Parts: sequence; C-alpha cells; structure tokens
Amino acid sequence: MSGKAVQDFYPPDLSHCYGCGRLNEHGYQIKTYWDGDETVARFTPQPYHISIPGYVYGGLLASLIDCHGTGTAAAASYRAEGREPGSEPPFRFVTAALRVDYLKPTPLGMTLEIRGRVLEIKGRKVVVSAELSAGGVVCVRGEVVAVQVPGMMIPAQNTKPDPHY
Amino acid sequence: MSGKAVQDFYPPDLSHCYGCGRLNEHGYQIKTYWDGDETVARFTPQPYHISIPGYVYGGLLASLIDCHGTGTAAAASYRAEGREPGSEPPFRFVTAALRVDYLKPTPLGMTLEIRGRVLEIKGRKVVVSAELSAGGVVCVRGEVVAVQVPGMMIPAQNTKPDPHY
Repeated sequence: MSGKAVQDFYPPDLSHCYGCGRLNEHGYQIKTYWDGDETVARFTPQPYHISIPGYVYGGLLASLIDCHGTGTAAAASYRAEGREPGSEPPFRFVTAALRVDYLKPTPLGMTLEIRGRVLEIKGRKVVVSAELSAGGVVCVRGEVVAVQVPGMMIPAQNTKPDPHY
Repeated sequence: MSGKAVQDFYPPDLSHCYGCGRLNEHGYQIKTYWDGDETVARFTPQPYHISIPGYVYGGLLASLIDCHGTGTAAAASYRAEGREPGSEPPFRFVTAALRVDYLKPTPLGMTLEIRGRVLEIKGRKVVVSAELSAGGVVCVRGEVVAVQVPGMMIPAQNTKPDPHY
C-alpha cells in the first residue's frame, strides 16, 4: 500500500465520512494500513473524548471499529482481486451491522491501536473482526459486516456502469 | 421526570461523557426522556456528521443508541425502585456491549428520534433495545447491554459506600 492508507484512495465524492474521510476536517480521519494479514489503524483520542473520567468514550471506540472495518473490507477486496488500491473501479464499503464488546475500560491519554482481520468475503459483503488495544492491552472487540456502497447512495457525478456498483 | 432528562441528574463527576455529558461542551449532550413505557431522545446531526453524501455517519448513530441506552438504563432503574431521578444514590451506567443494525441509510438534514425499550433489568445489568428513525422511517435498530459504573471507574471524591457502586 506504499505508505498510503486505503482511505487515501477513496474517490473524492466518497471521502467526506466523519470517521474516515480525508476531506472531512471535523472528523477523525481514520487510516487503515496492511500489516501482514492483518490491518492496523492508530488513533489518539482528544481529552474531551471522555466517558467516565480517565476513560475513552465508547461511541468513539465503536466509530474506530466501524471505519477501520469498512476500510479493511475495501483493502481486502483489492487484495482478493490482485489489484492495488487506486486502480479502477474503486472499492467503498458501508456498515450493515456493528457489534462491539467493551471488555474493559479504555484509558484516555494514549494512542489506541485497532487491528482488523477478514473473516469472510462473499459477493458484496465482507465480515471483519477487530480488536482495539491501549498500551498492549485489548480493551474492546468488535465485528463489522460491511457491504459495498449501493448505487443509490453514490453522488450522481460519480455513477458509472461498472461491476462494483 | 418533570421536563428534565435523566442525564440532567447524573452526578457532576460523571457528566463529562462525550455522548451525553451535560458538562462536555464538545459533545453531543444526548437527552433521554420518558414517553410512557418507552424512552425518547432527539438529535439533529450537523452537516459534517456525514458518511456517504446525503446520509448520516454510522458511528454517530451508534453513539446515539449507546448513550440513549445507558440513559434508559438509569431511568428504568430509578423507576424500578420507585424513586425519582436526583434521589440518592444516583444511577449511572456504562456500556458492556453494543449491537447496531443499519437497516437503511439515515438521511442527513433532519432531526432523528431514538426510542428505547427496557428488555431486562437484572442486578447491575440492564438490556435496552432502541430504534432510530428519520421522518417516521426506522433506519437503525440497536441493543445495548448496560452495566452500572464499577467503583474503580468513579473519581475518588465521588466514592462512597452505597449499594449501587
């Protein structure tokens, strides 16, 4: 992936997501990279991303798993086709189902690591499992069912007849 | 609940949550009210809470269900004990597990309604189901397993021996 995250290759019209869009200046700009057969993303919460004092807000943790899951789905789909991200047509996934288990409180004040594994690729659907850790301790586990962006959700200027939409 | 949300009664030290803390000026400040046997919260996303153009970011939707779920758990616990929110000791829950199913894309640009129902109250655990709708159309369903805040997560000045912590 030559130093770039899979989200860096999302088409501009599909790069505004609050979680992972590189063009959303308000958002988290989550970045998903390959690390062997796993994917990895890192994120440092702000002090105001708090739940109970000292710990990270669970909704943010769900968001990290969500967008790292759809990013992993896109990365895995390119790899399954033997293509590089950035080649046409682009892969872009949204979440159909999200499951998050908060195993223990996630401490604020450090960089979090989210690791993804592809459980299944089947047609337009990819299932990804994720583990989020802080200081090497797994605090959250999740699973994302990601599906390719349906054609009706793509801005008009971006629609073109290709097998992925 | 006399016009106040259950979150308005959270102890100040437990009111900084990015999702529902009234003292977090950066956060969503989600408010949970009773409506008969259901609870209701309403939230209007900002334009930058976007996923694919025209639709709301799924991580925000998960956050709304998350904090409305823990708010519902607190409200239901007061009701189960025949107490008013604000009476001592306070109830405050965190999320142990979150499940979100995105049934259809949630349109940006309108106020969303989240309705909660208590499925189970058992000891320190409350299970809540939630439906999120936009313009009367249910777009997201979720379930929250909420547990009372463990004593080790409460700031020192707030710890006192009572049966709830």
